[in-house]
Amino acid sequence: MKVAALSGGVGGAKLAEGLMRTGADLTVIANTGDDFEHLGLSVSPDIDSLVYALSGLADRERGWGRANESWSFMGALGALGGETWFNLGDLDLAMHVLRSERLAAGEPLSAVTAGFLGRLDVTARVIPATDQRLRTLVETESGRLAFQHYFVRERTAPRVTGFAFEGAEAARPAPGALEALQKAERIVICPSNPYISIDPILAVTGYRETVRDAVCVSPIIGGKAVKGPAAKMMSELGLEPSSLAVARHYRGLIRALVIDEADAHEAAAIEAEGVRAIVAPTLMAGPEDAERLARIVLEA
Amino acid sequence: MKVAALSGGVGGAKLAEGLMRTGADLTVIANTGDDFEHLGLSVSPDIDSLVYALSGLADRERGWGRANESWSFMGALGALGGETWFNLGDLDLAMHVLRSERLAAGEPLSAVTAGFLGRLDVTARVIPATDQRLRTLVETESGRLAFQHYFVRERTAPRVTGFAFEGAEAARPAPGALEALQKAERIVICPSNPYISIDPILAVTGYRETVRDAVCVSPIIGGKAVKGPAAKMMSELGLEPSSLAVARHYRGLIRALVIDEADAHEAAAIEAEGVRAIVAPTLMAGPEDAERLARIVLEA
Repeated sequence: MKVAALSGGVGGAKLAEGLMRTGADLTVIANTGDDFEHLGLSVSPDIDSLVYALSGLADRERGWGRANESWSFMGALGALGGETWFNLGDLDLAMHVLRSERLAAGEPLSAVTAGFLGRLDVTARVIPATDQRLRTLVETESGRLAFQHYFVRERTAPRVTGFAFEGAEAARPAPGALEALQKAERIVICPSNPYISIDPILAVTGYRETVRDAVCVSPIIGGKAVKGPAAKMMSELGLEPSSLAVARHYRGLIRALVIDEADAHEAAAIEAEGVRAIVAPTLMAGPEDAERLARIVLEA
Repeated sequence: MKVAALSGGVGGAKLAEGLMRTGADLTVIANTGDDFEHLGLSVSPDIDSLVYALSGLADRERGWGRANESWSFMGALGALGGETWFNLGDLDLAMHVLRSERLAAGEPLSAVTAGFLGRLDVTARVIPATDQRLRTLVETESGRLAFQHYFVRERTAPRVTGFAFEGAEAARPAPGALEALQKAERIVICPSNPYISIDPILAVTGYRETVRDAVCVSPIIGGKAVKGPAAKMMSELGLEPSSLAVARHYRGLIRALVIDEADAHEAAAIEAEGVRAIVAPTLMAGPEDAERLARIVLEA
C-alpha cells in the first residue's frame, strides 16, 4: 500500500517506524520548521529523528537521538567556551557535519537526506517539507522566539500566543513530496504536535491543497501530550487540551482520527465534527506497539 | 626570560611545552601552512598540537591529538558516506567546530586561538603565523599536492621536488608576532620540519627579516627525522639528511644549533658554517626531557 505521512520528530517517527514495519511503501514528509543553524552546523532535528527511527539507530529509552551515543564533544566544547544548551552527541554530530558540508556544496536537503537513508539501507523515503528555508517562530508573551530557543533554551516556559512560519510562502514542496501525497492510497498525519510539527509543513504552498481524507493519530491522551508542549500550547491558546481540539484543528484535512482508549468519551463529539473517531491504544512503548497502531491506521 | 619560538606541530610542541615549564615568558609562532578545510571545518593541526601540549591535554603516547580521545564521530561519519581519511576525534572536533564557527563570524584566527588558550588557562601565547590564508603546497613527481593530501592521504609517498606557500606574499604576520620576536631575549626554532613547518612561517613577509641569532634544535638525529618526512625530503631534494643540512638551511637566521649526541661528529662541519653546535640529548620522551632540552636552548 502506498502511504504518505506528515511527521514531526520523535512521536511521529515512532509511527513512521510502525508504518514501515507493516511493509507499506512509505514516504514521510518531514517538518523542517525546527531546523536551525547551531555552531555553524545545519541541524534538522525532525529529519534526524525519522532517519534514526527508520534505520534502527534511535535510542528508544532516552526517546531522542542515537543509541550508544557518547558526549565527549559536548564536554570539550563547554571547556572551550562553546554554547552547550543544545545537546549534540558524538555519533549524531556526523549527520550534522556531513549535512552542513553537502548543503554548503549546493546539494539540496532532500538529496542529502536521501543519501543518508541510502547509506543506512532504509528503503522508506523521508522528504523534507521543503528544500528552502522554513523556520517556525513562536509568538510568546515574552516576544517572538526562534523555535529551538523556545523549545530547548527556554524549555517551552513562555506562554504561547501564536506561531509564524518564516519562509513558508516562498518555499516550495521538496521534489517528490506532492507526488507522494497524490499517489498515496493512505495519507497519515502522525501523532506530532499540530502547531509546531504539522502546521509548518501545511504552511508551505501546495500541501494544504493536496492533503485530503487523511487519517491522523491524536498526539493527546487524557488531556496531555505524550511528549512535548502540545497540551500546554492548547491551554495557552484558550483551547481545552483534547483529541477533539485536534480533530477541529485538522478539519477539512482528515476523515478519521485515532484516539486513545482513555479518550473514548470524546468519540461522539469528534464524529459530530464530521471526523470518524477510531478508539485504539495509541501509546507506543516499542516498535511492536507502533506496528499495531500503524495497521489500525492503514485499515481505517 | 622573554622567549619567542617558531614551531610546527608535534615535535615543536614538545619543546614549546618544555620552554613553558622553565617559567619562560613564552610566545610561540605557529605554522598555519598545514591548515585546511575538511568536511566544511577549519582545521589547524599545528596550532592544535601546540594548544594541546601547552594545556596538558595532548596524548603523549599516541604522539598526536588529545588524551582520552574517542572516535564515535569518525565511525558514524564513515557509515553515512563521509570522508574518513583524516582522523577527527570526538574531543578534538570541539576545537574545529568552534574555530570554524568563530572564523565564519569574522573573528581572526589569532583571536580564536587566544580565546582557546585563555579557556584552558594557558598563559603562554600561541600566535598563528598569519590570520590570512597560507597554504603549503608540495611539489612532487606526481604533481603539486595540497599539504594534507600529500601528508595524510598519500602518506608522504610521492617524491618531493619543492614547496610553494600559497598566500605567503599577501599575508601579514598576525598581531603581536613580530613584536614578540623583536622583544625576545631568545628566539628559538623548534625541532620541526624545516621545509613544511618553519619555511611557511618564514615565507610570510616580515618574519625572515626579524628572526636573528636564533637557537634551533635539529629535528634530525642520526640521519633520520624523529617524526615525519624531514629526512626523506632532504634525500629527495639531493641533500644528505643531517643536522649539517639543517644548519645550512637556516644560515643567517640561527647562531646555534642543538644537535643530538648521536651527531656529535657533525659539530665541526656545522661550526665551519658559522653556527655554534651544541651537543645534547635531543630526544624528548616526556615533559621532563623537554624541559631539560629547553634549559639548554635558553642557556645557549
